Amino acid sequence: MKTFELYQQWGTLDLAIEAHQLLRGETGRELPGVKEKVESFDYGKVTTITITDSTGEQLMGRQKGTYITLEVPAIRENNRPLHKEIAEVMAAKLSSLVNLTPHASVLIVGLGNWRATPDALGPQVVEHVLVTRHLHRYAPEELREGMRPVSALAPGVLGITGVETAEIVKGVVEKTQPDLVIVIDALAAANINRIGTTIQMADTGISPGSGLGQKRAALNKDYLGVPVIAIGVPTVVHAGTIARESITALVEALKENEVTASLYRNANPILIENIMGEVLAAYSGNLVVTPKEIDELIKNISLLLALGINRALHPAISEEEMALYVN
Amino acid sequence: MKTFELYQQWGTLDLAIEAHQLLRGETGRELPGVKEKVESFDYGKVTTITITDSTGEQLMGRQKGTYITLEVPAIRENNRPLHKEIAEVMAAKLSSLVNLTPHASVLIVGLGNWRATPDALGPQVVEHVLVTRHLHRYAPEELREGMRPVSALAPGVLGITGVETAEIVKGVVEKTQPDLVIVIDALAAANINRIGTTIQMADTGISPGSGLGQKRAALNKDYLGVPVIAIGVPTVVHAGTIARESITALVEALKENEVTASLYRNANPILIENIMGEVLAAYSGNLVVTPKEIDELIKNISLLLALGINRALHPAISEEEMALYVN
Amino acid sequence: MKTFELYQQWGTLDLAIEAHQLLRGETGRELPGVKEKVESFDYGKVTTITITDSTGEQLMGRQKGTYITLEVPAIRENNRPLHKEIAEVMAAKLSSLVNLTPHASVLIVGLGNWRATPDALGPQVVEHVLVTRHLHRYAPEELREGMRPVSALAPGVLGITGVETAEIVKGVVEKTQPDLVIVIDALAAANINRIGTTIQMADTGISPGSGLGQKRAALNKDYLGVPVIAIGVPTVVHAGTIARESITALVEALKENEVTASLYRNANPILIENIMGEVLAAYSGNLVVTPKEIDELIKNISLLLALGINRALHPAISEEEMALYVN
Amino acid sequence: MKTFELYQQWGTLDLAIEAHQLLRGETGRELPGVKEKVESFDYGKVTTITITDSTGEQLMGRQKGTYITLEVPAIRENNRPLHKEIAEVMAAKLSSLVNLTPHASVLIVGLGNWRATPDALGPQVVEHVLVTRHLHRYAPEELREGMRPVSALAPGVLGITGVETAEIVKGVVEKTQPDLVIVIDALAAANINRIGTTIQMADTGISPGSGLGQKRAALNKDYLGVPVIAIGVPTVVHAGTIARESITALVEALKENEVTASLYRNANPILIENIMGEVLAAYSGNLVVTPKEIDELIKNISLLLALGINRALHPAISEEEMALYVN
Repeated sequence: MKTFELYQQWGTLDLAIEAHQLLRGETGRELPGVKEKVESFDYGKVTTITITDSTGEQLMGRQKGTYITLEVPAIRENNRPLHKEIAEVMAAKLSSLVNLTPHASVLIVGLGNWRATPDALGPQVVEHVLVTRHLHRYAPEELREGMRPVSALAPGVLGITGVETAEIVKGVVEKTQPDLVIVIDALAAANINRIGTTIQMADTGISPGSGLGQKRAALNKDYLGVPVIAIGVPTVVHAGTIARESITALVEALKENEVTASLYRNANPILIENIMGEVLAAYSGNLVVTPKEIDELIKNISLLLALGINRALHPAISEEEMALYVN
Repeated sequence: MKTFELYQQWGTLDLAIEAHQLLRGETGRELPGVKEKVESFDYGKVTTITITDSTGEQLMGRQKGTYITLEVPAIRENNRPLHKEIAEVMAAKLSSLVNLTPHASVLIVGLGNWRATPDALGPQVVEHVLVTRHLHRYAPEELREGMRPVSALAPGVLGITGVETAEIVKGVVEKTQPDLVIVIDALAAANINRIGTTIQMADTGISPGSGLGQKRAALNKDYLGVPVIAIGVPTVVHAGTIARESITALVEALKENEVTASLYRNANPILIENIMGEVLAAYSGNLVVTPKEIDELIKNISLLLALGINRALHPAISEEEMALYVN
Repeated sequence: MKTFELYQQWGTLDLAIEAHQLLRGETGRELPGVKEKVESFDYGKVTTITITDSTGEQLMGRQKGTYITLEVPAIRENNRPLHKEIAEVMAAKLSSLVNLTPHASVLIVGLGNWRATPDALGPQVVEHVLVTRHLHRYAPEELREGMRPVSALAPGVLGITGVETAEIVKGVVEKTQPDLVIVIDALAAANINRIGTTIQMADTGISPGSGLGQKRAALNKDYLGVPVIAIGVPTVVHAGTIARESITALVEALKENEVTASLYRNANPILIENIMGEVLAAYSGNLVVTPKEIDELIKNISLLLALGINRALHPAISEEEMALYVN
Repeated sequence: MKTFELYQQWGTLDLAIEAHQLLRGETGRELPGVKEKVESFDYGKVTTITITDSTGEQLMGRQKGTYITLEVPAIRENNRPLHKEIAEVMAAKLSSLVNLTPHASVLIVGLGNWRATPDALGPQVVEHVLVTRHLHRYAPEELREGMRPVSALAPGVLGITGVETAEIVKGVVEKTQPDLVIVIDALAAANINRIGTTIQMADTGISPGSGLGQKRAALNKDYLGVPVIAIGVPTVVHAGTIARESITALVEALKENEVTASLYRNANPILIENIMGEVLAAYSGNLVVTPKEIDELIKNISLLLALGINRALHPAISEEEMALYVN
């Protein structure tokens, strides 16, 4: 089985950038219907992948739209001044994904399970975003100057509520009629180094059958009736991805060593591939792993995401003022 | 101002039993349109107050319906075997409030703010109730035998979400169509001894303008379209109720003492009442207080309420089995 | 019984400033052996009470030494820029209590029970202070420049550990030999308005029989062998103090009203006092209360105290640098 | 590098049973100075490894003494009736490790960082054990009947306190003079399937340089002056162990396949070993991983360990009574 398919089956291909890398590696050519643009900034880089047509959709296993990825190793350092700068880059890119009028209202949805630390990113972000919708109803005008109406919800997961998350969100969207929904979720990556260092923002929302884990039903424009931006950060990898990565590295090393290379020259590549597949089959279980430092990581990243979202949604409010409202 | 009105203005007359006691005390007679029945059991008593017509509604400041109150001082002891027995009484009384067919579905709503311990009772109960609605969709039949479909939600408060709680609940009710809604909330009492010792269950739901605190919009059959049972336990009192209670006690003591009584015999009762009102005015602020041991109290009572609700909703599931599903 | 004695018996006279006010009110004169100095600053005032001899000790029911009290109503607002300014005042006053050389080592002890929110102030402060003692052993010199060795401990309470807190602290002091111990604790006040608005700092440590609650054994220079500074903020009052305050206010109002005054002119003051005492006796139980918003209050104040302590102990470290180390 | 050495360097050989398995595998023979006995019970097995002399100590990289390992896959199921049975086995084996008179006093020490979920096992166990030492001082005799004096402490980690954990524990041991210390800690395993399924109990305490992670200084009889039992459960593995395991499996598979076997017959085994070492070098960083469900796992296992310890230390107290005292 190809790595792309395997990782997708394991539910660890939540990042468009990883899917794209894998597919280009496996096919050795550019993908039709997919464009990629890379920019650098002080602490990392921003990759924008655009899926332009249904060919791209099928190849990439995800919906047409724009996927912006920030890769910033320094996110994992708990360096607040640096986090402020990263939040500004995030805010600018988030704003570029959607054309939002100054008074447009936004519903922020923190997906995931607050009882499981690696899955608690969404609920944690909801704890820190600036919520203002009620001020628009109850507060004097000078207080709400420069604040768009923002509401926020952490609906919980199916095992806690007994209700599909998408149903809860749709119910709230119908009642409150936001102009935009932003969903935040913890993601699974194929590479352990991406945990806590990569932010993906997409204008596609979250769609079923897009290689994503089973907990997420459709949270997209089709289902909710309003544009949906999805923001995610990898917090887990499948244990099998470590196995896959290491046995691939071993086979490559054996091929490159001048002594063992001669042996491999005579070997049947399909046979080698099959043996690798059998070894990997031992990891097909649900061994999803996360770093030991996951608590601090979730705390720091949720503060960063909340800051980036706050800056994007309320550009007219100064940092000092915002500190008065937000935890 | 009459104590009834004052306490209602302070938002501390959430208990029908306290409202009834006060009104009968102030008027010195039975209230038309209101019936009361008292039963005893091993560890306490059960008082059932029924408001039968609109006269009763106006006098009591709350909707027609049945208000069952368990008064059990032992609830505050962390005695699990005893809690099991109290939960059975609670389950029987809860079942008596609504005629529920075996397969009828129920949505449990935990009101209140999980960031504020005295207000976190509802969300804490939601953490411990047996949620089964998703099993009915995804689990094999033998697993769901004897389990009605139950879902649960802690929607948060206006200050966290920016959305009226009632709107969120109505959105979810429309999407999931339960046959009954049970709302759980922390209440305010007039008497500090009621904190953590009294459970009120009513078939009226929660109505605006019913003497309840401002956080609660209508969660009743009129608004949600399905029957609503409200379960509440007092966790706070207004600091002013302690002041009111003590100055009333002092005036009574002065009237009863044979020396000072003669002085009071000549005094103008309205004048005394006015002076008392002025003293009390100093407490009109938002001084709501709660016991120092509130964390443990909320933990123990939320477990008790969850147990009572689980026993009422799933009478066919044994305690041992339930322990496998519930936290 | 005099209010001073009553409040001391209830364990709510932790603040020297309240003890002093009460005693001067009850005696109508200055206390021998006690000095008081009041200074104002932008957001409040600072009162320094010095108990200079054993007469003062006996009258005030607490040890010789200096008790500095900051009264700042704005502490309860979650206003971070303002908190920074208050922290600077606190740091200056804290530094004035002890003559600390630049390399002197400090052990910070957060007293109280982390499972009970109103009592969790000490443990919460420990979570936020800058701990550096281990850096002095393991880090390169440039990192520890300007940082004195600071360690921190939240030993828990007797009910959790089974060990007297003072014994644990003494054991750690003997092993680690700090030059100064700072203990932080939640206090009980006589006036509900002091909760979360008053900071007391004393160079006396905490002594048994000093009017303090029973949980605190001696944590002072006599027992620990090194100077001890105690920092406390009231988080609770006794329910009876509200009763006492209100019945006293009523009697005063009755005396001042021209009609009722004539009645009181003829009454026996001792009789009135006795009747008041009987009314108050109903509140002699363990009814200690705390504001409903206690969770947020503890969070904000613990951050403020930690900031003040950090500024006092590490004056050479800039705020930006400190943000890199502290949660 | 041999796997034994590699895993020890990574700090993932905390389990004596894994060290023993690896060493016997690598040497292909029994180890002198080491005995192993295996017993089965209903839900798993119990392996007792005894290191009898200094040869065994050097080979196994850990101190002379008895290491009892329970292997029970069902621990990871949240099945309370089953947990009660496992706790009885654990209690019996724990009692066999030390000869404890009925009135001997015990100090339980929960090692680890309560801010990092996978490391919070020790502090969590401390929250649930029955603490009785203070009852012996303050409670009437009938209450303490059958309860030995037990105290408990979660001292925190160096990064939180600035003090070596061993120093804090030694300070408390000197003050409180227990007859036995039991330390509880989260461990690192070499095999991901051991996480949350294996309990190790040893009469050696915890010693530096015993292949254990750097956070743990000596907590043994030599340093503390009283016998020390160490109880641990693996909660993490090194990411590199997954890599090692999978590349070893691949090489084995290649050797066993009849086509590729011929290639390997001609290859230099040392060359292969070196290439494997280079591939593995990429994993030398601090990539310690833990299951995604770590929160629930820590919660369940801490309850199980506390139950086992309570049963061992207070055999005369019935389960019902114990429920009245313990959270």
